[in-house]
Amino acid sequence: METRPYVSWELINNFMIDVFKAYGVPEADAAICADVLLESDRRGIESHGCNRFKPIYLDRIKNGTLLPVTKMDIVKDTPTTVVMDANNGMGMVASHRIMEMLIEKAAKYGMAGGAVYNSTHYGIAGYWTSMAEKAGMIGISGTNARPSVAPTFGVEPMMGTNPFTFSLPTDEEFAFDFDCATSIVQNGKIEFYERMGKPTPAGLVVTKDGGTMTDSGKILKEMRAGNCALLSIGGLGEENGGFKGYGFTTIVEILSSALAGGPYLKELSGKDAEGNNKLYRLGHFFFVINPEFFMGLDTFKKTAGGICRGLRASQKAPGAERIYTAGEKEHLAWLERKDKGVPVGEAIQKEFIALRDECGLDYRFPFEN
Amino acid sequence: METRPYVSWELINNFMIDVFKAYGVPEADAAICADVLLESDRRGIESHGCNRFKPIYLDRIKNGTLLPVTKMDIVKDTPTTVVMDANNGMGMVASHRIMEMLIEKAAKYGMAGGAVYNSTHYGIAGYWTSMAEKAGMIGISGTNARPSVAPTFGVEPMMGTNPFTFSLPTDEEFAFDFDCATSIVQNGKIEFYERMGKPTPAGLVVTKDGGTMTDSGKILKEMRAGNCALLSIGGLGEENGGFKGYGFTTIVEILSSALAGGPYLKELSGKDAEGNNKLYRLGHFFFVINPEFFMGLDTFKKTAGGICRGLRASQKAPGAERIYTAGEKEHLAWLERKDKGVPVGEAIQKEFIALRDECGLDYRFPFEN
Repeated sequence: METRPYVSWELINNFMIDVFKAYGVPEADAAICADVLLESDRRGIESHGCNRFKPIYLDRIKNGTLLPVTKMDIVKDTPTTVVMDANNGMGMVASHRIMEMLIEKAAKYGMAGGAVYNSTHYGIAGYWTSMAEKAGMIGISGTNARPSVAPTFGVEPMMGTNPFTFSLPTDEEFAFDFDCATSIVQNGKIEFYERMGKPTPAGLVVTKDGGTMTDSGKILKEMRAGNCALLSIGGLGEENGGFKGYGFTTIVEILSSALAGGPYLKELSGKDAEGNNKLYRLGHFFFVINPEFFMGLDTFKKTAGGICRGLRASQKAPGAERIYTAGEKEHLAWLERKDKGVPVGEAIQKEFIALRDECGLDYRFPFEN
Repeated sequence: METRPYVSWELINNFMIDVFKAYGVPEADAAICADVLLESDRRGIESHGCNRFKPIYLDRIKNGTLLPVTKMDIVKDTPTTVVMDANNGMGMVASHRIMEMLIEKAAKYGMAGGAVYNSTHYGIAGYWTSMAEKAGMIGISGTNARPSVAPTFGVEPMMGTNPFTFSLPTDEEFAFDFDCATSIVQNGKIEFYERMGKPTPAGLVVTKDGGTMTDSGKILKEMRAGNCALLSIGGLGEENGGFKGYGFTTIVEILSSALAGGPYLKELSGKDAEGNNKLYRLGHFFFVINPEFFMGLDTFKKTAGGICRGLRASQKAPGAERIYTAGEKEHLAWLERKDKGVPVGEAIQKEFIALRDECGLDYRFPFEN
C-alpha cells in the first residue's frame, strides 16, 4: 500500500524541465532528461528516477563534473556505426541523439552500432533499448560506471555495476525489457536492506579478507571506505557461477570503452589522486538490430511473445504466486501509476521545494497542502 | 597431474574426419566438424570435445535426427544479415558457412547478423565467436537447446542451458573469450560432482517442491525423470539475482528462435509425444562487429587488453592464487596440450577402437600399446 503522496506526471515533468533550464540545460535537452528520469518512475524503478534528479544531475552540474550544454562531436559516422564524443555534457542527451541516428541506420541497413565517450550518467539503460523497441527493433545497450565490483577471486572494487540491457519486441502489451546491473545488487539495495533492518544475503559483497559480510549498516560504511566490493551475478568464488557474472560485467566494461577508446576501471572513479572531483568520462555502447532484415518483425514478435507466455504458464513452485518475464513488473507498475502520478517521499518533497525556491519557480505541489 | 594417455592432434583429427566420412559426412564438412570438436579439447573444455563425437553426432546420424549431408538454404540475404535453413544437417557446417558470410559482410559494412534454424548441435559456441575474433572482429553467438532450465519461481525444465558467448580481440596472447552456459552448471558438472563423491552446491537445481537438492546421484536420477530442473546464474529465487540469470537465458532463447521464426522451449525436446526421437530443429544466432568501423582495431585491442591486465593485477583475496580473465584458462590449457595432444580416458578409448573397427579404418592408437 503506497502511503507517499502522488504528484501528477505533467506537473513533475514541467517542474523538472524548468529546473534543468534554470541550471543551464537547453529546453529541448531538458525535456529529454526529464523524460528519461520519469521513465524510471513510470516503471517503478525508483533508484533511477526523480530521486536522482538533484544528487546525480543538478549537484554535478553545480560542481562542474557535468556540463549542462552538451556539445556532441561525431568522430566517426559510417552507414552502420557512429562514435560520439559527448564532451562531458548530459549523457542522456548524447544517448538520445545517438539512438536516433542508429535507429535510422538500422532502418536502412538492418544493423547499427554506436559508442559514446566522455559522457556522464545516462539514466536507466532500458530507456535507450526501448527507443529501438518502439521503432520495431531490438535494442542492446550497456555503460560503464565508477568502480565498485570486484573480479572473481579479487577483493578490490574495479568495475562498475555495468548494466547489460536488452529490449526485444513481442506481440504482447509489453516488450521483453531486460534492464539490470550485472552485479547482484547495487548500493541502493543494501540501503534498502538497512532501512528494513534486514541483513544483506551472504555472497553479495566481498570483504578484503576474501569473505562476505551480511550486516547491512556495516557494509555501507565499509563500502564508502573502499573496504569491500560488490560481486557480479553468481556471487563469491566459482562454485555458483560467479565467474559467469564476472564475465558479463567485464564484457560491458570492455564494450563501453574499447569501441571508442575511452578510459576504464579506476580511471572512472570521478576523483583525482587528491580526492577532488574530476570529470567522469563514462562510455556507453548501443546496438540496434532490425528484425525486418531477418524473417520480419511480426515473426519476431510472435515468437518472442510465445516464449514469454510459455515461461509464465509453466509449473510454479508451491507457494509462488506467479512467474514473470522481464519487463512485466515494470509494465504492472505503469498500470498502477499512470493515472495517479509519481509517489514522492519526504526527502524528495523537501528537495523539490528547495529547488523551486532556489530557481524562483512558481509551482505548488500537492504535498504542500 | 594428467594420468590419461595422450593422442596427437594430427592422429585424432584424421581419425575423426575418416569416421565422419564413413558416416556419410562429405570430406570438407568432416574437417570442419573435427576441428570444432578438437577446439574444445584444445581449450581444455572436455565436456564438448571428442567425448561427444559418438553420442552427440555419430549416434544421432545413425538414429536419423542428424543428417550427415548439410543442405543449406539461404532464405534471406542482405548486405548485413543472413537467415539460413540448415535442414537438420550438421549444425557445425551451417554455423561455419554463416560465420564466413557474416565476417565478409562485417568487413564491408561494419556490422552483421545471422540466424540459423532447423539446425543441430553446433559444438562450442566459442568456436564461432573466435572465427570473428581471428578476423579482427567482435563475435557474439548463442544457441537454444533441449529444455532443462526452469524460470525464476518455476520448477519445470523449459529452456536450454543457452550459452551466450563473446569473443573480444585484445593485444594479448589470447583474446577475451567468454563461452559458457547461462545456467549455473550443465548436467556434465553434476556428473563430475557424482564421480568425485561430492554434493552439488545448494541452489543449482530446483525440485518440484520449489526447494533445492544437493545429492549429486539423486539429482541425476531425478533430472532424467524430469523431476528437477537446472537454474540460471544467480540461482533459486530473486535474492541472489536469479532473475538476472533467468533473463540472460531467456534472451538467448528468444534470439535463437525469433530472428528466424523457429521452434522454442518444449518443442526442442528431441522427443515426440510418444517419446520417440524427433528432429531437434535448433536455432542459433551470430553477430559480428568490426572495430574498424568504430575507433579501429588497435584501439579496441589495446583498451580491452588494458582492462584484462588491470583486473588480473587487482588485489587478490587472501589465499587466492590468481585472478583470471575469460579465455585465459583455455589458453593455459592449450599451452599445456599443444605438444602433447589430447588426453583420452578409458571410455573414449573404447569408443574410438569400436568406431575404427566398425568403419574398417586402419588406425593404431598409442593407448593400444
